[in-house]
Amino acid sequence: MVSSLRLPALTSLFSPSFTRRSTVSLRRRLHLRPPLAAGFSAQSAASSPTETEDRVDSKKSGRVQDRGSTDRVITPRSQDFNAWYLDVIANAELADYGPVRGTMVIRPYGYAMWEAIQDYLNVKFKETGHSNMYFPQFIPYSFIEKEASHVEGFSPELALVTIGGGKELEEKLVVRPTSETIVNHMFTQWIHSYRDLPLMINQWANVTRWEMRTKPFVRTLEFLWQEGHTAHATLEEAEKEALQMIDVYTKFAYEQAAIPVIAGRKSKVETFAGADKTYTIEAMMGDRKALQAGTSHNLGQNFSRAFGTQFTDENGLRQHVWQTSWAISTRFVGGIIMTHGDDAGLMLPPRIAPIQVVIVPIWKKVDEKTGVLDAASSVAETLKNAGLKVKLDDTDQRTPGWKFNFWEMKGVPLRIEIGPRDVSSGSVVISRRDIPGKQGKVFGISMEPSILEAYVKDRLDEIQSSLLQRAISFRDSNIVDVSSYEELKEAISLGKWARGHWSASDADELRIKEETGATIRCFPFEQPQGTKTCLMTGKPAEEVAIFAKSY
Amino acid sequence: MVSSLRLPALTSLFSPSFTRRSTVSLRRRLHLRPPLAAGFSAQSAASSPTETEDRVDSKKSGRVQDRGSTDRVITPRSQDFNAWYLDVIANAELADYGPVRGTMVIRPYGYAMWEAIQDYLNVKFKETGHSNMYFPQFIPYSFIEKEASHVEGFSPELALVTIGGGKELEEKLVVRPTSETIVNHMFTQWIHSYRDLPLMINQWANVTRWEMRTKPFVRTLEFLWQEGHTAHATLEEAEKEALQMIDVYTKFAYEQAAIPVIAGRKSKVETFAGADKTYTIEAMMGDRKALQAGTSHNLGQNFSRAFGTQFTDENGLRQHVWQTSWAISTRFVGGIIMTHGDDAGLMLPPRIAPIQVVIVPIWKKVDEKTGVLDAASSVAETLKNAGLKVKLDDTDQRTPGWKFNFWEMKGVPLRIEIGPRDVSSGSVVISRRDIPGKQGKVFGISMEPSILEAYVKDRLDEIQSSLLQRAISFRDSNIVDVSSYEELKEAISLGKWARGHWSASDADELRIKEETGATIRCFPFEQPQGTKTCLMTGKPAEEVAIFAKSY
Repeated sequence: MVSSLRLPALTSLFSPSFTRRSTVSLRRRLHLRPPLAAGFSAQSAASSPTETEDRVDSKKSGRVQDRGSTDRVITPRSQDFNAWYLDVIANAELADYGPVRGTMVIRPYGYAMWEAIQDYLNVKFKETGHSNMYFPQFIPYSFIEKEASHVEGFSPELALVTIGGGKELEEKLVVRPTSETIVNHMFTQWIHSYRDLPLMINQWANVTRWEMRTKPFVRTLEFLWQEGHTAHATLEEAEKEALQMIDVYTKFAYEQAAIPVIAGRKSKVETFAGADKTYTIEAMMGDRKALQAGTSHNLGQNFSRAFGTQFTDENGLRQHVWQTSWAISTRFVGGIIMTHGDDAGLMLPPRIAPIQVVIVPIWKKVDEKTGVLDAASSVAETLKNAGLKVKLDDTDQRTPGWKFNFWEMKGVPLRIEIGPRDVSSGSVVISRRDIPGKQGKVFGISMEPSILEAYVKDRLDEIQSSLLQRAISFRDSNIVDVSSYEELKEAISLGKWARGHWSASDADELRIKEETGATIRCFPFEQPQGTKTCLMTGKPAEEVAIFAKSY
Repeated sequence: MVSSLRLPALTSLFSPSFTRRSTVSLRRRLHLRPPLAAGFSAQSAASSPTETEDRVDSKKSGRVQDRGSTDRVITPRSQDFNAWYLDVIANAELADYGPVRGTMVIRPYGYAMWEAIQDYLNVKFKETGHSNMYFPQFIPYSFIEKEASHVEGFSPELALVTIGGGKELEEKLVVRPTSETIVNHMFTQWIHSYRDLPLMINQWANVTRWEMRTKPFVRTLEFLWQEGHTAHATLEEAEKEALQMIDVYTKFAYEQAAIPVIAGRKSKVETFAGADKTYTIEAMMGDRKALQAGTSHNLGQNFSRAFGTQFTDENGLRQHVWQTSWAISTRFVGGIIMTHGDDAGLMLPPRIAPIQVVIVPIWKKVDEKTGVLDAASSVAETLKNAGLKVKLDDTDQRTPGWKFNFWEMKGVPLRIEIGPRDVSSGSVVISRRDIPGKQGKVFGISMEPSILEAYVKDRLDEIQSSLLQRAISFRDSNIVDVSSYEELKEAISLGKWARGHWSASDADELRIKEETGATIRCFPFEQPQGTKTCLMTGKPAEEVAIFAKSY
């Protein structure tokens, strides 16, 4: 296999800085090649994050299978969660590394998940009064410097354009890491009186943050997101908007992605650079680490003061606008993978799945083939007409068994099998991805369109809620109520989330981070009644916070 | 008015290079402020293209109206097409200048036109077998250099990232001007055998080209587009795909945008940097200049040879893949504006219009208001339920006359007026944007939902085809058949397109460009029969070419 590597030809493309870790990254690449690949055209070393969380044991490289094999190897999730995650992404062809360190190519199957996220949110954003638009991605460097905490938060992560059209630029341009600054620059020109408010917009865009530790979907140098930006006449309206949008995200997570996020407020330490308040949805991944899956910020007047974004109120007085911003990104795709997958690979909630039903026709003799394929096509047509996302896998280069494994690994919620006997009896066999083996398999479902359609839709609904219920149970059995720092340390060391009353200082919070690796994920909106004592200081505390290690 | 300028405060943000033409750009900005603005917050000088085509007569700045006025001033199209174009963009709030020279902020009304383009094409791309995905925008500089004519074509226009995360990068990164190079880098890893072909993908993305002469929508430093990329086993398949996609674009232009483009092949001189053949759709704007509105390239094996993108064919032989790429961008929005507008402003084809029907309630006495508004809401609801894009303009801060002008300027195809008498008679008044004055106005259309819905949909269909017919007549009356260079020069000097037989050299083509400003827009697919003589050389020529000045 190694002889087919084209690495030498490609490495010549890259600068020395990119190639120095080629040995390490080559090992990982070998492992990460989709097993369907006929030969290994090793990706250039430049594509490999030099410092990443995606370490993969070099021993695994030997297990990569070539095209002829039906035997896909995915590291068991229980054995090594991170290796499992990377294996799933490679094998299910969700993404690949780009040629520049830390960048990611989102492949069609992964991109279709992002499109499902977009389709849902885009409707909700419009229903709640927002319009889409587009801001340029190049921001004058001086803009970033105008809001003090914003520049402090973002300046270490900036990518800068210094040459344009062959000439050195007089002012460096920032490739947007987020758009608050340029948005305010424009809002200042568009907002004049209270009649221009609220101004509520959203953009779907790419953003760039020069991250050192990258991981596909979860943290990449460039990622895709939507960023909403609004301006209001009062603090109350801005607060209401920030809460409304974290609520839209929460509903999306529960109802579409089957992820039982915990919504709440960030601590001061964890608040967005430039915001007064940050609301967040925190998801528990399969390894029990927390993933910040979406945020909504009440920006107060921080940016409007920095940029002079004012309006004339009803009394003729000039006031600074009150603002919000909120975002969900391609990171959410990583959250879906890490919430629902199992040892066999991906397990996708039906409402996000690019393919909801895969149909596998089964025949042995040539004279069976036509009848089986005709029936399979007809079933596929029935379900497509019912608005379902259907794939008919009718290739004859693979065995049915190979196909079963393959589509399970790709996380398709339902599989329909049709063989010669099924054709005779006018029925099909249906298997659920979320219930392995015989228990998830039902025989003799009628092919009659109205019966089949209703059955399939019911099962998809069941799978959708079953995935959510399973994730809720998992989450709840991994959150521990703690009332002392000792208990907190114990919970964190067991890999769990710790929930306890908190009114201690920022310094205490940072100390916990240093000593345990856990941070305050949020003060959940759902709070127990009454005042208790802070787990750290023993002083009165009105709120519980959730502590966890996170991505 | 000038006293409310905030220019001094903002200019401090920018480097000297940006501010040196502030006087000129200030004049233009004043003119371009949307008349609805209460005061002028002049945009920073940095936002003004330093060398642009959008010169505006300084005299016009005095005509800008403030919020109190109902009198929108748009330079008559017949008087100054370019000034009209910029006025329409500003007044209809389609776009604004970004803070960096040559960049553009696409405002909600303009972005909604782009969304209409996306919605249609996205379906067509999927129907023709393409999947969406996403490639990183940062491309190692060395990639661009690998295809000889590609680097020659693009290197003068590149934006380069040289600093990331606070450190000078060892290899400069190109902000993608187009993605053939990075696509091939990845295709080389994904394509192994003939079974992996065809590989057909598309991405919706932003691209950057450091243009010196910019104009909103038509040519901006950053723009939005889709770029399709495919790889095939044979030249024939690639050729078929390139032709298929220019056909998708052609149908889109005719059927959705009502733009009667001429589809054809580019001359060698005008072929895309890196392609064997470029197919194009050329649109005639209202000033009779040509706009290249979409292109589809047969890339041959140019990129596959440069990047080693090979597959094993059915006989076990290694072959380079054959490729295509094709794109339509936000430039198309400019094409729609410049094809259909008139002195009153925008005129949008119903299938692209963000608002297809505007409803203006009319009342004088307070006791009329409720009845009129109720009827108007009910009509709006009826039409929305019928799937139409409807706006009910029920603000009482503007007179009906002001609203009529405003929505005409915004190009809304149909206006429905409802006054107290209409409420009594259960009918409405409907005016067409494309037929001015009384002739386009019909009284007494029943409010009864089924009647109204059918009437409105019929009128929208009529407007859609009427706009197309009008554009076809305009186009055909402005193309002149020429059989000598003298005739060609005459036609071009009259601002027309010249069509004539052509078999002369690249040098002759360039000479025509120098002497007349016209280029070969294309060799149209629709060709007269038989061989004639070349207009330039008198030698035999099998094809006619179309010459025109272009954007």
